[in-house]
Amino acid sequence: MTMKTLKGAALVGQSGGPTSVINSSLYGVVKTALENENITRVLGMSHGITGVLNDQLFDFGKEDPNELARLPYTPSSAAGSCRYKMKDPAVDPTDYERILEIFKKYDIRYFFYIGGNDSMDTCQKVSAFMAKSGYECNVIGVPKTIDNDLFGTDHCPGYGSAAKYIATTMMELYLDATVYDSGMVTVVEIMGRNAGWLTAAASLAGEYGPDLVYLPEVVFDMDAFLDDVQRIYDAKKKVIVAVSEGVKDKDGKYISEYGSSIASSKDAFGHAQMGGLALTLTGFVKSRINTKVRGIELSLLQRCAAHTASGTDIEEAFMVGKTAVESAVSGITGRMAAIIREDGDVYSSKVELVPLEDVANYEKKVPLEWIGENGSGMSKEFFDYALPLIQGETGLGKENGLPRFAKLKKEII
Amino acid sequence: MTMKTLKGAALVGQSGGPTSVINSSLYGVVKTALENENITRVLGMSHGITGVLNDQLFDFGKEDPNELARLPYTPSSAAGSCRYKMKDPAVDPTDYERILEIFKKYDIRYFFYIGGNDSMDTCQKVSAFMAKSGYECNVIGVPKTIDNDLFGTDHCPGYGSAAKYIATTMMELYLDATVYDSGMVTVVEIMGRNAGWLTAAASLAGEYGPDLVYLPEVVFDMDAFLDDVQRIYDAKKKVIVAVSEGVKDKDGKYISEYGSSIASSKDAFGHAQMGGLALTLTGFVKSRINTKVRGIELSLLQRCAAHTASGTDIEEAFMVGKTAVESAVSGITGRMAAIIREDGDVYSSKVELVPLEDVANYEKKVPLEWIGENGSGMSKEFFDYALPLIQGETGLGKENGLPRFAKLKKEII
Repeated sequence: MTMKTLKGAALVGQSGGPTSVINSSLYGVVKTALENENITRVLGMSHGITGVLNDQLFDFGKEDPNELARLPYTPSSAAGSCRYKMKDPAVDPTDYERILEIFKKYDIRYFFYIGGNDSMDTCQKVSAFMAKSGYECNVIGVPKTIDNDLFGTDHCPGYGSAAKYIATTMMELYLDATVYDSGMVTVVEIMGRNAGWLTAAASLAGEYGPDLVYLPEVVFDMDAFLDDVQRIYDAKKKVIVAVSEGVKDKDGKYISEYGSSIASSKDAFGHAQMGGLALTLTGFVKSRINTKVRGIELSLLQRCAAHTASGTDIEEAFMVGKTAVESAVSGITGRMAAIIREDGDVYSSKVELVPLEDVANYEKKVPLEWIGENGSGMSKEFFDYALPLIQGETGLGKENGLPRFAKLKKEII
Repeated sequence: MTMKTLKGAALVGQSGGPTSVINSSLYGVVKTALENENITRVLGMSHGITGVLNDQLFDFGKEDPNELARLPYTPSSAAGSCRYKMKDPAVDPTDYERILEIFKKYDIRYFFYIGGNDSMDTCQKVSAFMAKSGYECNVIGVPKTIDNDLFGTDHCPGYGSAAKYIATTMMELYLDATVYDSGMVTVVEIMGRNAGWLTAAASLAGEYGPDLVYLPEVVFDMDAFLDDVQRIYDAKKKVIVAVSEGVKDKDGKYISEYGSSIASSKDAFGHAQMGGLALTLTGFVKSRINTKVRGIELSLLQRCAAHTASGTDIEEAFMVGKTAVESAVSGITGRMAAIIREDGDVYSSKVELVPLEDVANYEKKVPLEWIGENGSGMSKEFFDYALPLIQGETGLGKENGLPRFAKLKKEII
């Protein structure tokens, strides 16, 4: 840690899958940096770290401040994103040498990267390489992911909004899927490859919530699942299932891959066609119960539905970005801005810095003791954890009945 | 037409697929009827006309007025729905005789049925049978359908909210699906078996709208579609397609059925598995272009997303219900309450009564001259038609960060 205030340009970028509030973190970084006297310029990476490697940067100082102020309510990654995995610099330092070259070219002394596990790994590697090279640059990671699987932070900006969308949508789907007098099984597929935080959020719909909930933290057994569905169906003729895309059987095989033999096949040119988990499960349910069965995949909608983002999430996303800049200017480097839940009956949170090496490449899963048996849902501990995160509404402005999102020029310098 | 004010009970029901605002029409009927001195009781059908046939009625006078006041913001059909097709009374009058029996039992003199084409057909048949039987009962149909395919009304309550959801979601999906530097084709499947009004609404997203739009009004040619996608992909590497579930080829075969040979197969017990149109089209695109291809089906979400309903739609839905009651009490029968768009630069509408026989069993399609060639989208006439319908926001209340929907007791009398 240098603990030294540097003077120079700041560079900020976004990486990985977008969320509804990743631009609120971007605004937290950009606004705070633009206002700081030690920061000479605030540059953005076009499409994350690939924008550095390709020398594709733009100047946030050239953007209309009124448009920047719309960023907290604009979904997806306004600077553009990438999915570029940095190599180990000990194996191949090419990318890092190129980054150093660009840092020198623009006198970049502050580096902020907003993303999930891989992005924190990138931050960590860039930070270590700069230190080793003797180039002074303070590096702070800013957490983001709807999956909520980042270590070191109580929860992750992006999760609260996705959870609010999922719970709201489950309530609406419940009312729709139970409207007829006839039987019906509805299977809702929710994102989350290894951690079930998003699927767990379906339970927040309470009395309008799913009858059965399956998270990837628990081994998925097809026979037990079909028994669970049959039991609920026999009792009330309407069954709503929420299931993580990442559920696996006892051998570690994704249930969605069961579809390769039954629910999908080859396309016209012989390519394998995957139908997804919802289609696979609806196929199995139809084999067991003679009723209407519908599969619904929330797909990208759950990570970009900014029109129903959580106000708390927007605010916290901004705070981690703001604190990242303040910390970097105070001389801190090699850390991630994390959200700490404070004690007390009323929810409150603060931002603290945690070492990047404690965060990168670990996945935080839902505690097993929070997950009910036989798909029966989530414990009170989960509700206590998640409900505060979905409170408050977005300040999204509308024009002509539709969202008015931020428009950036992003002219490459 | 009797043109006679009757004294007695009113009966109201909902039928067919729900919408975000069908309960606003229900509230328009119920509130107006509860306040009218000629109406002795306001009864609800549990699950539409089947609730009459099964003598499953409940009393709206017993419901909490504060809960009833939440109906305009509550999606789906609060009274329950059905998909029961009435027989021709000349062939089999059993159902009608049963309905007459129930009408007599509860002294029902007003009958309001909220629904689409089939429901207007039911209204028409009930009205004709009562007239023939000499039983005085004023029958008014109240239009509802997200599909917007009802004749006799400028547009249909339910459409504006679905259109607003689709346009909003397309904007958000656009930002998400174009966030990476790499190529991607996104195919969004939208409801509409024979009429493309909903898919056309995707265009309202404007600069965030789909590159290509396919409605069922135009014959779908797979080769032309793939050429269209290829052309846009070559130009900008990102292609977003909005397509109606009901698109058909020149032989009248649904494109989604192409999937039966390529994108779907048999389940474990030999049942055919349909993958849907989005999966079928993504399969064909993958065969042609070597890039990431994603299919998204908006599914039920587009008809129940009350959290982003159109304020104009909620208001007009209420007005058709209110006017239905006022008209029936003034002695009108055998009509549907229709929305008439008034002349002028600023949008306004009024409600008028149209004969049920002019409405029932016809489908109103998108004018061909409003649809661009080669998937190029909608004309200015469509925008002028649809934009006013998505204006204004819902008054939906929230509790604990989530929607607070109406809760009815619906105790069967």
